Amino acid sequence: MTNVLKPLAFLGQAIESQVMVELKGNRGYRGTLDGYDPHMNLVLRNAEELVNNEVVRKLEVTIVRGDNVIYISP
Amino acid sequence: MTNVLKPLAFLGQAIESQVMVELKGNRGYRGTLDGYDPHMNLVLRNAEELVNNEVVRKLEVTIVRGDNVIYISP
Amino acid sequence: MTNVLKPLAFLGQAIESQVMVELKGNRGYRGTLDGYDPHMNLVLRNAEELVNNEVVRKLEVTIVRGDNVIYISP
Amino acid sequence: MTNVLKPLAFLGQAIESQVMVELKGNRGYRGTLDGYDPHMNLVLRNAEELVNNEVVRKLEVTIVRGDNVIYISP
Amino acid sequence: MTNVLKPLAFLGQAIESQVMVELKGNRGYRGTLDGYDPHMNLVLRNAEELVNNEVVRKLEVTIVRGDNVIYISP
Amino acid sequence: MTNVLKPLAFLGQAIESQVMVELKGNRGYRGTLDGYDPHMNLVLRNAEELVNNEVVRKLEVTIVRGDNVIYISP
Amino acid sequence: MTNVLKPLAFLGQAIESQVMVELKGNRGYRGTLDGYDPHMNLVLRNAEELVNNEVVRKLEVTIVRGDNVIYISP
Repeated sequence: MTNVLKPLAFLGQAIESQVMVELKGNRGYRGTLDGYDPHMNLVLRNAEELVNNEVVRKLEVTIVRGDNVIYISP
Repeated sequence: MTNVLKPLAFLGQAIESQVMVELKGNRGYRGTLDGYDPHMNLVLRNAEELVNNEVVRKLEVTIVRGDNVIYISP
Repeated sequence: MTNVLKPLAFLGQAIESQVMVELKGNRGYRGTLDGYDPHMNLVLRNAEELVNNEVVRKLEVTIVRGDNVIYISP
Repeated sequence: MTNVLKPLAFLGQAIESQVMVELKGNRGYRGTLDGYDPHMNLVLRNAEELVNNEVVRKLEVTIVRGDNVIYISP
Repeated sequence: MTNVLKPLAFLGQAIESQVMVELKGNRGYRGTLDGYDPHMNLVLRNAEELVNNEVVRKLEVTIVRGDNVIYISP
Repeated sequence: MTNVLKPLAFLGQAIESQVMVELKGNRGYRGTLDGYDPHMNLVLRNAEELVNNEVVRKLEVTIVRGDNVIYISP
Repeated sequence: MTNVLKPLAFLGQAIESQVMVELKGNRGYRGTLDGYDPHMNLVLRNAEELVNNEVVRKLEVTIVRGDNVIYISP
């Protein structure tokens, strides 16, 4: 198990890059990852909120609560 | 990972500013952030409650329980 | 972060005053806050139970379990 | 906060008296409170089970799991 | 509070007797209680599975996970 | 309480035997129990996945997450 | 219980091999397992997202949150 990449360490590598965050309920966020914590709470900057894949809102900065996350993808 | 902003520290920076809080179930609150704790329980002052993006109630002060939060945005 | 008001401390200030408690499922309680604990379990006295904003029951005293709470407002 | 009544202490005072327990899913129990624990698991004696406010079953004694509880009222 | 009966101690007294276990989703089990743990996980022997109050299956022995339990009644 | 069988100890006795695992959402697995942990996460070998009691997939080996489990039956 | 295979140890053996991950809500991921943690959060590389068994997206790398997992199968 020498090269196992922990999911949170992987998040650390994605800091300051663009990520796509898919939440429960057909909701998503696309933005720059500015921060995270062990609960997968996220800080996103210059984020777009998507509902059913359509942009419904732009958010300069936002905290997304981790327990709604399905996946995070750079 | 030098500049990682923890989501809770970010909440600390938003104290006394206007925030938008989106909850599960098409409910939201807009108000001044007066306090928070590690569960993302929030104290909001001069808050408006929104259901499906329409203001349905005004609340001088309110505690919003953190586990219904989807995102918090200044 | 000198003036941050913790949500539970805020509940402590509301003791013996009238509060409105909104729960999941279109249910609410209006009554005098007699007690609380860190899980936001509440003791309410002279409470009215509301379903879809109509009073359906009066309860001399009641314990409301915290994990159904959406917000508490004095 | 001198007279704050903790919800669990309040349950302790209700031992051996008649309580109404409302659960999620339009289900309720009315019976004598014989015991409880910090999770709000309850022991009820001579209990009636109510579904949509109609008695559907009588139970000599029953353990009700706390995480379904909405409120407990003496 | 001298005679308070803890719910788990009550389960201990029900060992080797017949119990009815009601779960979420209109599912139930009737059988001999062979074991339990603090999460209310149960071991039942000679159990009948009921869906909407009809026996749908017989199970020589089964482990029922506690977090689906609504009530347990001897 | 001398003969109380803990649910997890019971799982230990079922190792290398055939088990039926019923999950939430009308889904089930039938296979050889190869491992488990205190969360009731399971390793099953030569497993069949059932949806509404019909075999929909065969899995040489699979990890089933414990929090979806309703019951496990040898 | 000499040969009991812990579910997480089993995940460790699957590192760098192809896995199928089934989530709640008819969603799945197929990809190379690059990492995991005790919550079953996963890092997948060269992943395909499936909704109702159809590929809807390709993700170079993705973190899947563990609490949505139903099963993981190599």
